[in-house]
Amino acid sequence: MTTLATMMQEGNLAGLRRWLADAGTLEVAEELVRLPPADRGVPFRLLAKDRALAVFEALDPVHQHELLADLREGAAREIFERLEPDDRARLLDEMPAAIAQRLLTGLNPRERQLTAILLGYPEQSAGRIMLPEYVALHPAMTIAEAITRIRAVAPPPETLGALPVTDGGRRLVGVVPLASLVVAPEDGRVADLVAPEVHRVRVDTDQEAAARLMQEADLLVLPVVDLEDRLVGVITVDDAMEVLEAEATEDQARTGGAEPLGRPYLSVSVLRLARSRAIWLLALIVAAVLTVNVLQFFEEALAATVTLALFIPLLIDTGGNAGAQSATTVVRAMAVGEIRFGDLARVIVRETGTGLLLGGMLGALGYIPVAAFFGPQLALVVSLTLTVVCTLASATGALLPLLARRVGVDPAVVSAPLVTTLVDATGLVVYFLLARVVLTV
Amino acid sequence: MTTLATMMQEGNLAGLRRWLADAGTLEVAEELVRLPPADRGVPFRLLAKDRALAVFEALDPVHQHELLADLREGAAREIFERLEPDDRARLLDEMPAAIAQRLLTGLNPRERQLTAILLGYPEQSAGRIMLPEYVALHPAMTIAEAITRIRAVAPPPETLGALPVTDGGRRLVGVVPLASLVVAPEDGRVADLVAPEVHRVRVDTDQEAAARLMQEADLLVLPVVDLEDRLVGVITVDDAMEVLEAEATEDQARTGGAEPLGRPYLSVSVLRLARSRAIWLLALIVAAVLTVNVLQFFEEALAATVTLALFIPLLIDTGGNAGAQSATTVVRAMAVGEIRFGDLARVIVRETGTGLLLGGMLGALGYIPVAAFFGPQLALVVSLTLTVVCTLASATGALLPLLARRVGVDPAVVSAPLVTTLVDATGLVVYFLLARVVLTV
Repeated sequence: MTTLATMMQEGNLAGLRRWLADAGTLEVAEELVRLPPADRGVPFRLLAKDRALAVFEALDPVHQHELLADLREGAAREIFERLEPDDRARLLDEMPAAIAQRLLTGLNPRERQLTAILLGYPEQSAGRIMLPEYVALHPAMTIAEAITRIRAVAPPPETLGALPVTDGGRRLVGVVPLASLVVAPEDGRVADLVAPEVHRVRVDTDQEAAARLMQEADLLVLPVVDLEDRLVGVITVDDAMEVLEAEATEDQARTGGAEPLGRPYLSVSVLRLARSRAIWLLALIVAAVLTVNVLQFFEEALAATVTLALFIPLLIDTGGNAGAQSATTVVRAMAVGEIRFGDLARVIVRETGTGLLLGGMLGALGYIPVAAFFGPQLALVVSLTLTVVCTLASATGALLPLLARRVGVDPAVVSAPLVTTLVDATGLVVYFLLARVVLTV
Repeated sequence: MTTLATMMQEGNLAGLRRWLADAGTLEVAEELVRLPPADRGVPFRLLAKDRALAVFEALDPVHQHELLADLREGAAREIFERLEPDDRARLLDEMPAAIAQRLLTGLNPRERQLTAILLGYPEQSAGRIMLPEYVALHPAMTIAEAITRIRAVAPPPETLGALPVTDGGRRLVGVVPLASLVVAPEDGRVADLVAPEVHRVRVDTDQEAAARLMQEADLLVLPVVDLEDRLVGVITVDDAMEVLEAEATEDQARTGGAEPLGRPYLSVSVLRLARSRAIWLLALIVAAVLTVNVLQFFEEALAATVTLALFIPLLIDTGGNAGAQSATTVVRAMAVGEIRFGDLARVIVRETGTGLLLGGMLGALGYIPVAAFFGPQLALVVSLTLTVVCTLASATGALLPLLARRVGVDPAVVSAPLVTTLVDATGLVVYFLLARVVLTV
């Protein structure tokens, strides 16, 4: 049990103070959100100002919103004003428009303007997560001048990992890591430290693409430019990590056949949880009606040899599992950029081969036990069906995500559950056709 | 098609040179690995030295190994010597012991020693991915002294995001971001800049835990200490991102019922692909034998009412989908730290409620069409089964991953496919029991 919840119930303020003093920022944030929303204000108000801000920043926007609603207007406004513009924009997205408007109006003009810049870019774009405050250096500056400029502007420290270098027209010409500046001789020129390769993204680039570029190129700071290649902000690596984590969560939800929640699991109501899954379950059950039709078509064969029915779940499960294996592997390889549409033929060949190997293995291993209990003919039908179904499932599991990306659908959407359901009907047709030939039913 | 492959086939060296000059480091790395391994040496050797190193660093260890094998001994040794110790350790893990030993012996003593330190820690530990080169500051130093010291040591720039501060006994007392040092007045003391909260991990901490801490606390550099809290190295944020990405890939593979490949998809042979899935498919099919037993038990009922068989795939699919939804959601929420074992009761209640809602909805919607085609009694059986199976599947999908973590098994292992297969047998029992009561078969 969380000690925090117990102390709250007992009204043990002294214990609460002691616990807050000992616990780390992340620990406080983590325990806070486990309290009912109405109870979070009490411990939060006991925190010193800077600590309270750090805890607040560690919270998810959903929880930030709940907490703000529970604070006095003045306290809420002060925290809101001290957030970074990108965190502020994210929090505003969570709020009803009226409250968002009131908080924005309360900001000082500079912070309001910085936030308005970000809110002007579409959601999920690089512009939304950049920081519009940065120090741009000039190539002709000496290192000493550059350092003086950095001290004079003193922007948020996380933007200082690397400094963009621009020409007179604010056009990006390079990036210099702060570490290189510090280590270089003071009379050297900024131009000499510019890395040979300049990574940048446009404001309208997708957040995930920007974050993945930062990861692959090991960047601390990624410059964001407008359509004329003029610098407008920088993305910092902590935000990139957050984006990648959120994208992985989204992909995983879709892989499991659910709409992403977009917020922490425990903060979502059961009704909303059900809603995120209902459409998918419905779509899949409609697809599964195909299996009823197939079986109806073969009902006579089924009536003549009821034993055939015994293997239906096993065959369906195995096909589904093989399809899930290949779909999840391919979806992930696409997400991290290891596979693209041009690799289609290669991937299909590989997955078909893998499916054939796996199906063949299962078929061979299953033959003896099935033959022993149900006779060699049924064993042959089951073994052959396993082989065909596994091959089909693996190939489909690879094909669908690649096709989806091609037509602009998130590949994760057409993964495991959809593949399974589609393969099932085909698998049953194969099963009964084989049965007709071998058992002559 | 990749132009690189075409130019290689045509032996178009001039075109190759031009393409290499225009392409970015990441692009070269990405196209290089799409060539057959034996062809990669040619374009790689055309790269200038620094560029070649950058491209090499952007490759996965598997591809690095293949490429090294293809280079002359001298060239290979030079690249190997210029790698960071942590990248070197990762590459050595990929190599046969004899080759690894020869490369290690060829290193200069300092680099060899740095690498040996890392190799002394267990795989997957924080010690393996840390950099043993860093600048430690002393609290009593002035800022100017600190900067002088950083310039004198000039460690790898990525370790400079934040500087660990140690006392006389090398014990960690804090961390100072480089950005704070640069912005602070030169006659200030390091002690005044130390952040109030010091994050650290022990050398034997799991890599994923270390990486997640860096993400949650937005750290550029995480100090790594030994059992006596003495500083031994630092983990940099780029390595943390790589670890988190690899862990997400592993989780996703397991969620799909496959062993993680641990290397890029296209670099793995079909045989190895099949092997990573075979054990799982086998285990799941053995579990699926339960469904055959259940159906055998109810074979008489099935023979009497063959129509019952028609709905078996649909019921099984839907149960499986509901289970997959809850399992993937819970596994991911556990991975990102939103849920832990203490939340068990709460999560089970939520998932049971969600499953009941979803199953009830599907049952209600399905009743009319099934009743129209197959009569009200069968419709009742199907609807009730849907409700029970969805509830059961959602609850199981939440319970298994939480229990797995409790007994030290990766929760992703017991997710979707296992839940599906286990729920299927139970679902069939429910179906036939309900049928017995309602249809009196």
